[in-house]
Amino acid sequence: MNIKENALQLHEKLNGKLEIKSKFSIKSREDLALVYTPGVAEPCKVIAADKSASYRYTMKANTIAVISDGSAVLGLGNIGPHAAMPVMEGKAVLFREFGGVNAIPICLDTQDTEEIINTIVNIAPAFGGINLEDISAPRCFEIEDRLKSMLDIPVFHDDQHGTAIVVLAGVINALKVTGRTKDRCKVVINGAGSAGIAIAKLLLTYGFTDVTLCDLHGIISKDYPNLNWIQKEMLQVTNLQNQRGTLADALINADIFIGVSAPNIVTPEMVASMKADPIIFAMANPDPEILPDIAKKAGAKVVATGRSDFPNQINNVVAFPGIFKGALEAQAKQITEEMKLAAARAIADLVSDSQLNEDYIIPYAFDSRICDAVSQAVLENIGR
Amino acid sequence: MNIKENALQLHEKLNGKLEIKSKFSIKSREDLALVYTPGVAEPCKVIAADKSASYRYTMKANTIAVISDGSAVLGLGNIGPHAAMPVMEGKAVLFREFGGVNAIPICLDTQDTEEIINTIVNIAPAFGGINLEDISAPRCFEIEDRLKSMLDIPVFHDDQHGTAIVVLAGVINALKVTGRTKDRCKVVINGAGSAGIAIAKLLLTYGFTDVTLCDLHGIISKDYPNLNWIQKEMLQVTNLQNQRGTLADALINADIFIGVSAPNIVTPEMVASMKADPIIFAMANPDPEILPDIAKKAGAKVVATGRSDFPNQINNVVAFPGIFKGALEAQAKQITEEMKLAAARAIADLVSDSQLNEDYIIPYAFDSRICDAVSQAVLENIGR
Repeated sequence: MNIKENALQLHEKLNGKLEIKSKFSIKSREDLALVYTPGVAEPCKVIAADKSASYRYTMKANTIAVISDGSAVLGLGNIGPHAAMPVMEGKAVLFREFGGVNAIPICLDTQDTEEIINTIVNIAPAFGGINLEDISAPRCFEIEDRLKSMLDIPVFHDDQHGTAIVVLAGVINALKVTGRTKDRCKVVINGAGSAGIAIAKLLLTYGFTDVTLCDLHGIISKDYPNLNWIQKEMLQVTNLQNQRGTLADALINADIFIGVSAPNIVTPEMVASMKADPIIFAMANPDPEILPDIAKKAGAKVVATGRSDFPNQINNVVAFPGIFKGALEAQAKQITEEMKLAAARAIADLVSDSQLNEDYIIPYAFDSRICDAVSQAVLENIGR
Repeated sequence: MNIKENALQLHEKLNGKLEIKSKFSIKSREDLALVYTPGVAEPCKVIAADKSASYRYTMKANTIAVISDGSAVLGLGNIGPHAAMPVMEGKAVLFREFGGVNAIPICLDTQDTEEIINTIVNIAPAFGGINLEDISAPRCFEIEDRLKSMLDIPVFHDDQHGTAIVVLAGVINALKVTGRTKDRCKVVINGAGSAGIAIAKLLLTYGFTDVTLCDLHGIISKDYPNLNWIQKEMLQVTNLQNQRGTLADALINADIFIGVSAPNIVTPEMVASMKADPIIFAMANPDPEILPDIAKKAGAKVVATGRSDFPNQINNVVAFPGIFKGALEAQAKQITEEMKLAAARAIADLVSDSQLNEDYIIPYAFDSRICDAVSQAVLENIGR
């Protein structure tokens, strides 16, 4: 039996991957009077007088919502809210198992930007944070930005920022392995959706200066047809020479390739055209932009993918559980750029200098130190 | 230490009364590949092709939302969504502990009818049912009716129907104790909010014919000033003689008093003015419309209250866990009148004829037979 059949059978057996459990077992009338009427009125009154007491008396303290509209689910595309549920439940399972965070999956029966924003604002009081998931670009940028300005709890689109944090962590260590510095690297990112844009932004915030975005039509330049608003915005800070051409053109003399795009679109010739000892992050799933052995043969020094069966897996699960664990512990109002950078550094630092090598630039997903290291990094950067 | 202090301390210690747990422990890369990528894509694809497969592969099968706008919370009134959370969490605890139903509390940051309806429709895909809670009348009627027509999962406002079902169960047995039949009783209901209206409707559906609603201004008649739409609608089926006057006027020669109103507003004289061996349901909380011993001294044969420290407690927890357990098991699209009547009969039947007496007309909340009896009654009435 293969993984597909196993997964289907397991999902049918579990019949929902989550359970909502009471922390308190009701055995008597007295118990009932404490957790429900009349006793429950007491925390209600305290919160009515001081909203911030929610964090003391309710699940808001340690619970987030995992919210999707089902418009860009995994590699499956726009499959809608019902079909997206197994993924959102799975994400909630990861939050619980890797971060001890209570996460509630919510799939929205609308793909209208205003409706999504209104709905999330309306259901926010129960939650200490909102993890947006699998919402298509460019709507995801506006939805996240607007929600951040309207809500006083963290709003975090994991497809963007979780990915960007883990990529940056890997890149930090790949620079060390190849003896590079961030201010002297040309970075080419292929894929200008939610992940690609967020990676570009975080690398620039970290201190990279030469970043070029490409998509399936080639280099995104000012002459590119049908630029959307986010691509236009990104051109203020990327491809400052306004280079035009194909991905192959972009990669000539580049130091780092980061792919969040499609299988097998990077050739050995492209890798060979890059600077010596190039860094390749080929994260298309399940088949990377170029297979590690082919990239290595063509001269790549460090190769990372999204897959667990190759070295250097770039897996969001390294970031998001600790990010929200720390944010909830801090009762953070938002996830700031400083927190994201600190999280990436903390992840990178888990690979000690003595262990660091081209096939070990990022800790394994099951490394038990990760969640606390990331949440600690978030906590230490509250309010900066 | 009293119950108020105990309840506050317990809420602080628990820091949220619910936990979201994974049913599956992730120990390895293989586990991860089954509950998340790539395995999770398989149930997604099946649901994308057939929405009804949600019940097979997701938590929709056994999970409901408990939703309030915080506009009419317990005896606390309009305290808003944050302060309502301890009650909604408590309700979710009861669903779990008494019915084995997964319930997720959602408190809405809006009290606008259209916004509430839109928001609930938008978040519905994750859930197998919606329990509305503590939404003020008359908005609660419109919100429930509209949602029922828009959604293909059960929508149930417990303040209305849970209360009505348990009251009917008690009334069925009180009729037996006092040797009455439903078609010959005059019923006076004091309190014309969500519970009072729903009780009137369900008693009429059951077969009572003479029901009069009162509120704090007296008997609701066609001459009553400022009738709202639901009161006007109720006048088509209640107070058919268009009696006018006070609650005291209404109670003269009445058989049954049902109070969902305010403390101590029924006097011994009023009870004495009723027919012989009257039935008194004095459910104002925490202080009933008349205390049981005073009512008994004035001639009442059966007295029920909302309190657990008197005989005959009318407690919704007898109904709602089993109602949703049955509805979820049946994948019911709605909770019908037949299901409600069957649930009330099932609850009443748990008190055997040999046990039935004036101080035992309704099973105790902790009677372990209740949930299955109610869910079975719901299941047997699917599709009628």
